[in-house]
Amino acid sequence: MTADEAPADAGTAWRRIADELAGAIGKGDYAAGDTLPAATALAERYGVHRHTVRQAFRHLAEQGLVTVSRGRGTQVSARRVPYPLGRRVSMRANLGRIGIVGSSTVLSGEQIIGEPETCEVLGLDQGAALWRLEGLSLADGTPMGTGTHWLSVARFPAFDAAYRGADGSITAALKACGITDYVRLSTRLTARLASEREAELLRIELGAPVMVSVAVDALPDLTPIHLVSSVFAGERMEMVVEPFNEEAR
Amino acid sequence: MTADEAPADAGTAWRRIADELAGAIGKGDYAAGDTLPAATALAERYGVHRHTVRQAFRHLAEQGLVTVSRGRGTQVSARRVPYPLGRRVSMRANLGRIGIVGSSTVLSGEQIIGEPETCEVLGLDQGAALWRLEGLSLADGTPMGTGTHWLSVARFPAFDAAYRGADGSITAALKACGITDYVRLSTRLTARLASEREAELLRIELGAPVMVSVAVDALPDLTPIHLVSSVFAGERMEMVVEPFNEEAR
Repeated sequence: MTADEAPADAGTAWRRIADELAGAIGKGDYAAGDTLPAATALAERYGVHRHTVRQAFRHLAEQGLVTVSRGRGTQVSARRVPYPLGRRVSMRANLGRIGIVGSSTVLSGEQIIGEPETCEVLGLDQGAALWRLEGLSLADGTPMGTGTHWLSVARFPAFDAAYRGADGSITAALKACGITDYVRLSTRLTARLASEREAELLRIELGAPVMVSVAVDALPDLTPIHLVSSVFAGERMEMVVEPFNEEAR
Repeated sequence: MTADEAPADAGTAWRRIADELAGAIGKGDYAAGDTLPAATALAERYGVHRHTVRQAFRHLAEQGLVTVSRGRGTQVSARRVPYPLGRRVSMRANLGRIGIVGSSTVLSGEQIIGEPETCEVLGLDQGAALWRLEGLSLADGTPMGTGTHWLSVARFPAFDAAYRGADGSITAALKACGITDYVRLSTRLTARLASEREAELLRIELGAPVMVSVAVDALPDLTPIHLVSSVFAGERMEMVVEPFNEEAR
């Protein structure tokens, strides 16, 4: 669906140009990573001022279809990778299902004293020792998201080693610790702007929009075992919630 | 949970100040809308440079706890309104459950020829006539989101009048058309920056992050009847997905 949102402006020149360019992107005339013709060239082609073309570019950028950057021109964005939020959530399995090679890297790992709220969410006593691990998730080599993970040290005494041994895959690390199945209890999602560090890790512009997810995974009996706070590049990811899709649940 | 994300800097002065301020906000020492002390005052209190305090402010802003704006100082943000994405989704019912008065207004309504993808999603023949309605949702008078709705004209010949009569409540308008129950088939969520029009409608800063949702509602037999593309203020809303919460499903 083409979400259009400015009915008051419908029919104006910038809108017609944006629609045509969106159509050309949709048909594949321009592929992900392609640079659109320069504003001056398009202005000549359509017989309009280049500001009008720039307004069309801005509209396409707002829709997430292109990225406008100084110096590099207007580039067609890659399609957003769908990330189903069902009863079982695994980044790598999600990606594999749509033919994308998921990978991850470990950024940091340390043992900390849990903050009160973190301990509560994980059903632990106040002041419990926690693993605090950071990782980066990639799809076909492009950073998708970065996450901070918390797990009980008492429950998983060797989780940091398992996490490093599994190259930052939580699913594989849990398996190495004897947990062969786990479920997604809850996910809270919102949007904010990337911090400097996040922009650097995700290779997005400083101040680009990110989706923030705070999620809790549990054993199949719903005992919480894993809290993860993630930041996903808004331009690359799309969360999908389908409560009636048994496969996704 | 306090999501912290800069382990390399943990223990530095800005981090300690940010943690203390976050704690004070969490305990309610500062309420939503309150202005934090000026950077210069806090710099004196902590014996640090004001740039250090500003870094703490930036960190809190990234976490969504405060809004830093020129002239108005550093204001404590309101808690994000949770929006459960279960099997039944109704903005007004969601808000009512947590004691917030939800309301909406109609922005526009027209009959259009559906775009190919829109018709397909709604299970209609190509070129079907659709209602295209725009509305704004508010919580206690504050704009939360704005949505564009598409429904079949053949199925709901008087939907525009029902929508206006219901002051922009889809649930009430459907009820007026004889649909007393409907379910949420799918929701796709991502993050981008607000357009000029969206920023104006939602009363957020131009370029503030928004959560974009494209959702399909269906009859209880899963026949799709309603497509809605919404934009929510990232600073005010939080989507909640709980696949095991029977009430939310």
